[in-house]
Amino acid sequence: MTDFRNKKGILFIVSAPSGAGKTTLCNDLTAKMPSLVHSISHTTRTPRPGEVDGEHYYFVTQERFKAMEEAGEFAEWAIVHGNLYGTSKTELERLFGLGKDVILDIDTQGAMKIKASGMGGVFVFILPPSMEVLEKRLRGRESDKEEDIRKRLERGVEEIRSYGDYDYLVVNDDFGAALDALRSVVVAEKNRVGSVDAGLLKEKFGL
Amino acid sequence: MTDFRNKKGILFIVSAPSGAGKTTLCNDLTAKMPSLVHSISHTTRTPRPGEVDGEHYYFVTQERFKAMEEAGEFAEWAIVHGNLYGTSKTELERLFGLGKDVILDIDTQGAMKIKASGMGGVFVFILPPSMEVLEKRLRGRESDKEEDIRKRLERGVEEIRSYGDYDYLVVNDDFGAALDALRSVVVAEKNRVGSVDAGLLKEKFGL
Repeated sequence: MTDFRNKKGILFIVSAPSGAGKTTLCNDLTAKMPSLVHSISHTTRTPRPGEVDGEHYYFVTQERFKAMEEAGEFAEWAIVHGNLYGTSKTELERLFGLGKDVILDIDTQGAMKIKASGMGGVFVFILPPSMEVLEKRLRGRESDKEEDIRKRLERGVEEIRSYGDYDYLVVNDDFGAALDALRSVVVAEKNRVGSVDAGLLKEKFGL
Repeated sequence: MTDFRNKKGILFIVSAPSGAGKTTLCNDLTAKMPSLVHSISHTTRTPRPGEVDGEHYYFVTQERFKAMEEAGEFAEWAIVHGNLYGTSKTELERLFGLGKDVILDIDTQGAMKIKASGMGGVFVFILPPSMEVLEKRLRGRESDKEEDIRKRLERGVEEIRSYGDYDYLVVNDDFGAALDALRSVVVAEKNRVGSVDAGLLKEKFGL
């Protein structure tokens, strides 16, 4: 396949309220597209059984995380349930260096930090079909307490308010259709005129 | 499927040098996507056997065409081999009124007229993988004379020079991949935040 695309990878930032199905969608998408990978986050959280450092997360101490943050090494970072999570710029550069596109599955605050940084990227928001469906999905997770569900719903509405700051909005009603829409966004963005290697095109067509 | 999209159809403008495979791609795409239709052009050309007025073209006289043009009724028009071809604004409005997205398969001059008119639209350029492949494809059409092929190739290079004025560039090397890319552009554009019915979304999520 002749490829006139420049080799610069694209950063896809995906946000959604908890329960919209973002994680499953993103995992299924990267399984379908070998050129698209998740970036590995740094976290101060304790590893869970089976979690491997440098594979699931880069596990670091609070001190190390704070030092990195102060040195401006994070593209974005956030506190979730008292633990720190961040995406290091070095990690993104590593993946782009491998010729990959990168998907970042982060909340709206992190997404807006990326947007404000001017590093560019394609912003996708995933929406449940309604609040009723979102609540039903959250209640389906038996482990969650009533208080947790209520908090997640409130926070969900707050997240949804930010949809206008994104480039694309994918409604996860029918899972197959939502996955197709998300994949289409990635394929379309790879075919943007801005992703073209103008020099190669000039050479090939004697322009 | 919950649909938060506003009902405004999208205009897709597709251009390519002759021999790039544009017509086959566009026809296969509309066959795959019932929501996407070709607009019917007005032309002063004589109908060919089997061509039906109002189905393949709106066949009109030179006088009628010129009167329409002077009245500003065309979104774009062009002269091809001495015949006039045009896309009427009424035809586009008719299709949008039916809830359709519209694909316009026109040359770069027509495309730039649409762009300059400010009516909006998504501009897609289809590229052959190389000049050699383009020439081979044109020579494969046995009906064309050497002189015609040479003219088409020269005109092809002129068309390709305009690719930078488009939003997307799809390379038709592997037909299946090119069709997938074109379809992805349509699906992605339908999921743009700008296509969202903000009122419906507000209502559904109590924003």
